[in-house]
Amino acid sequence: MALDHHRVQSVVAEIADEMRARTDRGEVAGYIPELSKVDPGQFGIAVADDQGFVIAAGDSETAFSVQSITKVFTLTLALGIAGDTLWRRVGREPSGSPFNSIVQLEFERGIPRNPFINAGAIAVTDLILSGHQPREALGEILRFIQFVADDPTIRIDEAVAASEQRTGERNRALAYYMKSFGIMENPVEYTLGVYFHHCAIAMTCRQLALAGRFLAYGGRQPSTGRTVVNPERARRINALMLTCGHYDGSGDFAYRVGLPGKSGVGGGILAIAPGQASIAVWSPGLDAAGNSHLGRIALELLTKRLGWSIFGA
Amino acid sequence: MALDHHRVQSVVAEIADEMRARTDRGEVAGYIPELSKVDPGQFGIAVADDQGFVIAAGDSETAFSVQSITKVFTLTLALGIAGDTLWRRVGREPSGSPFNSIVQLEFERGIPRNPFINAGAIAVTDLILSGHQPREALGEILRFIQFVADDPTIRIDEAVAASEQRTGERNRALAYYMKSFGIMENPVEYTLGVYFHHCAIAMTCRQLALAGRFLAYGGRQPSTGRTVVNPERARRINALMLTCGHYDGSGDFAYRVGLPGKSGVGGGILAIAPGQASIAVWSPGLDAAGNSHLGRIALELLTKRLGWSIFGA
Amino acid sequence: MALDHHRVQSVVAEIADEMRARTDRGEVAGYIPELSKVDPGQFGIAVADDQGFVIAAGDSETAFSVQSITKVFTLTLALGIAGDTLWRRVGREPSGSPFNSIVQLEFERGIPRNPFINAGAIAVTDLILSGHQPREALGEILRFIQFVADDPTIRIDEAVAASEQRTGERNRALAYYMKSFGIMENPVEYTLGVYFHHCAIAMTCRQLALAGRFLAYGGRQPSTGRTVVNPERARRINALMLTCGHYDGSGDFAYRVGLPGKSGVGGGILAIAPGQASIAVWSPGLDAAGNSHLGRIALELLTKRLGWSIFGA
Amino acid sequence: MALDHHRVQSVVAEIADEMRARTDRGEVAGYIPELSKVDPGQFGIAVADDQGFVIAAGDSETAFSVQSITKVFTLTLALGIAGDTLWRRVGREPSGSPFNSIVQLEFERGIPRNPFINAGAIAVTDLILSGHQPREALGEILRFIQFVADDPTIRIDEAVAASEQRTGERNRALAYYMKSFGIMENPVEYTLGVYFHHCAIAMTCRQLALAGRFLAYGGRQPSTGRTVVNPERARRINALMLTCGHYDGSGDFAYRVGLPGKSGVGGGILAIAPGQASIAVWSPGLDAAGNSHLGRIALELLTKRLGWSIFGA
Repeated sequence: MALDHHRVQSVVAEIADEMRARTDRGEVAGYIPELSKVDPGQFGIAVADDQGFVIAAGDSETAFSVQSITKVFTLTLALGIAGDTLWRRVGREPSGSPFNSIVQLEFERGIPRNPFINAGAIAVTDLILSGHQPREALGEILRFIQFVADDPTIRIDEAVAASEQRTGERNRALAYYMKSFGIMENPVEYTLGVYFHHCAIAMTCRQLALAGRFLAYGGRQPSTGRTVVNPERARRINALMLTCGHYDGSGDFAYRVGLPGKSGVGGGILAIAPGQASIAVWSPGLDAAGNSHLGRIALELLTKRLGWSIFGA
Repeated sequence: MALDHHRVQSVVAEIADEMRARTDRGEVAGYIPELSKVDPGQFGIAVADDQGFVIAAGDSETAFSVQSITKVFTLTLALGIAGDTLWRRVGREPSGSPFNSIVQLEFERGIPRNPFINAGAIAVTDLILSGHQPREALGEILRFIQFVADDPTIRIDEAVAASEQRTGERNRALAYYMKSFGIMENPVEYTLGVYFHHCAIAMTCRQLALAGRFLAYGGRQPSTGRTVVNPERARRINALMLTCGHYDGSGDFAYRVGLPGKSGVGGGILAIAPGQASIAVWSPGLDAAGNSHLGRIALELLTKRLGWSIFGA
Repeated sequence: MALDHHRVQSVVAEIADEMRARTDRGEVAGYIPELSKVDPGQFGIAVADDQGFVIAAGDSETAFSVQSITKVFTLTLALGIAGDTLWRRVGREPSGSPFNSIVQLEFERGIPRNPFINAGAIAVTDLILSGHQPREALGEILRFIQFVADDPTIRIDEAVAASEQRTGERNRALAYYMKSFGIMENPVEYTLGVYFHHCAIAMTCRQLALAGRFLAYGGRQPSTGRTVVNPERARRINALMLTCGHYDGSGDFAYRVGLPGKSGVGGGILAIAPGQASIAVWSPGLDAAGNSHLGRIALELLTKRLGWSIFGA
Repeated sequence: MALDHHRVQSVVAEIADEMRARTDRGEVAGYIPELSKVDPGQFGIAVADDQGFVIAAGDSETAFSVQSITKVFTLTLALGIAGDTLWRRVGREPSGSPFNSIVQLEFERGIPRNPFINAGAIAVTDLILSGHQPREALGEILRFIQFVADDPTIRIDEAVAASEQRTGERNRALAYYMKSFGIMENPVEYTLGVYFHHCAIAMTCRQLALAGRFLAYGGRQPSTGRTVVNPERARRINALMLTCGHYDGSGDFAYRVGLPGKSGVGGGILAIAPGQASIAVWSPGLDAAGNSHLGRIALELLTKRLGWSIFGA
């Protein structure tokens, strides 16, 4: 079913205007020094269809740090490598607690609840790393994202990576904690090196929307027609994004937006309207749960106006 | 889009046959004496469309205790009474922890995480009760379920209600704990009386599938054409079922089945395929997370064979 | 070894003067309406020796609500009834967490950590009640306290008991929660009725200091020479007071005061200097951990000036 | 008051005989490979008085890994360096939970509950390290222990240190976690290097009993007459040992033994009878709480037979 480009264009432009006018913008993430310098006034949106056609508005061509959104791509890669054996190391349930991460790890003996919280994504990165040098593993992740986005210019922001590396004590704690339960195979600093670098990938809304298309279209990369994952796996990754993609705001995101989505502390969100479009929004200010404040609002308006919720007409 | 009745009929019959043959059936709930007596060999399935047409197989005409599935209907009723002010008393996030209920209540000062865990449903029942006698409130809940199911013969199983009342100490603890934070308005025993009785409603798969149709069809009760909730509210209730409907197995249910659903410890599951059908399955044996073991497997097969997952083709 | 009455008298008077002059007095407990009415300007102290001689100063003859201090006497009684089988229902470890009570009960399947937190004292009360009517059990507790204090005039403050009964939802939650694990034998309201009433016993510092003497003098009630408990049991109760007697301030109390002690939210503290004296202090204002602010300071000065710490000269 | 050497000698010999005969010996710690090789059949005991006279029996001259017992000496050193400002980084309350360490750190924002759990001792080590090279800090700790034991032959077991360093992921997690809250000043690997090495100090019962004397005798090192700490600080360290010295078995140790004590997973316990003696016991098998099984039993018999409990005659 082809997108009504005209209608989408008009809704996207409207939303960008409305977002520009809002004064409630959330708080820019402070814990990574490089990220805290970003201008909170920015907002971008891009909608990509299966023809590679992109409808965009606002700061959709400005690259931002995608941060946790890469967890979707590393999960996809890791499932390709390990298949369902991945689930021996990582769960599939919402973390479901403001008391996040390390408490849960202690109660569940080192197994992270899902691949979209930090601990889970570190375990997934460790799996991708196994049998490789960190540089090779990182290259594989970057090339995979370039492939699904059909854009070889996507790069890692080394300043952000260095900033994360310097301030990543909490992630180190998570990694060593998992290692103490035998969940990690590689030296912690190797795994974290890869993790910090893939989180530091910079993309524009346009690039991110294009990169998400395989999840909207049954696992196929539409530009090349090549299969990234089979349709069942695409559905399952979407399901995980719906239940776990927004930390302890996942329930609220499902309730308001009604699409699978994954947010990053850089202020980006990738959302998937299965069979309809892949959508990227970006606005640096975050809400209390650490998700883009205006990004979530923009997506709520978009799904309402276009009737894209997966939960009914 | 009309259901392909022939195709659905054949898939439903196949699945009932496959379920009958399986020897892994889970464990019947032991904590309510009345429920523990149920024969674990039973399995029923029913699929209802917007014409009120029901395709069924197995023990689809045997009444079972719907238990927590009534939480969907009490939530719907309470939203009708209180609108979004309901969310001052109850959250919308997955409980996300095997350490359920009362730990979470302490950390979050008496506010239950969502309306589909016991504490949340007790808070919702308390809201419905306010301003009424317990008998009236219970009557209202029962009539609402009879209305959406278009079936005035639906009844409460008094033996089950009495059994729950006698053994409901954990629920009493939850209720008094919330009361200590000012979340409950009515005398705890009144609220629990209503709660234990609505959990004890007995329905067949056919009745339950019919009762769920308003969630599959934009909030309308198809038999009468009357609006139960507006389309946005129907979508939002579906979203809550997806993220929170299966306790700490909600992520797994979304991953495998890909439909909003709500399970009960009686072994029933109501699942919604928006725009397609309302589905009820029942098999008394439960998995480790307290959800119907064969019920979940049957729904996974159904969505796979009919392509009904909300997460893509 | 006889007390140097002159020296003790002078130290006690000094301390009462110093406490009278202080402006930091803590906060009077607000959660029981009757207690919140007490004048925070009061301070009393009494030191009793094995001859029944009492050295006192300040408001030592004003009766106050002893609250949790009765937990020492109910533990003593329950050990007399059940001996070491008591420890099947209650632990002996500090609760050691600001996340008190009900979280711990969930993690440890209904067994309270020690007899001096509310859950533990309710379990102890339930044991005393078994085989009796609530009125009889309460009478037994009151008579036991009158006996060890050698004072038949000690009474229950019915207004406080009624106030607790009306506002005791948190304690009801604890009790029903334990009942759900099979820890409680009697109807919850019966056990709580006894519990709320014994917490509402009113005593003066003089009475309380006299009542604690059996713990200071090897288990003997010195006035009558009768054995209350054997010397080993007296030591063990003292040990429990040291490790668990001040909720999550027990470590700090041991560190600063160096005596076994038990506090109540009425602002009283009973402290035991083994072989030296039984001491009661009272000042209604509480610190953040719920213990008498000036009471603790007074005891710290007393043990320092008299060299009574059990941890060395 | 001088020790009755004859009586102590006879009790100590009796206890060593009784311990030798017991078949319940607990489990040798498995998590540090070097420790798991120790013969569980060993038992040693030594009692030191203020004259430096040592009464010993069993394997009292066999060196064992003192492990957490060094936490007493590092705390003493750190208090000498920082005084009460130490308590800004570390609490003084029992950890009081089988859900130890990292959960507590998350709830209390990186501040360990007390200096005798691993996290707390790492924070204390970090304080000692500040302004020094790791080698210097370690030298200072070792020399301090040699000084209080009056024995320059005490050494670090390098094989144990290396074993801990290789398997210390849990401690690394704790350290990085605290660092993420700003509790640690030095590079984590430096602090842990010092920590792993001081835990690997090997001592005999005789040496350990001698090293503890300053805590039994008002803070003075009796051989030299030099003040190690003032009497108040000695009392306070004893109080911390009583409330926190045996992990989640501290309450039980106080209840049964009635002396301040600190255990290590090597199977040693240092116990202090203020004014009477400093006592060391050693038996490698541990109980469920991680404390020496026969060591605790031996101390319980000793205090009962000699009347040394601090909680009364």
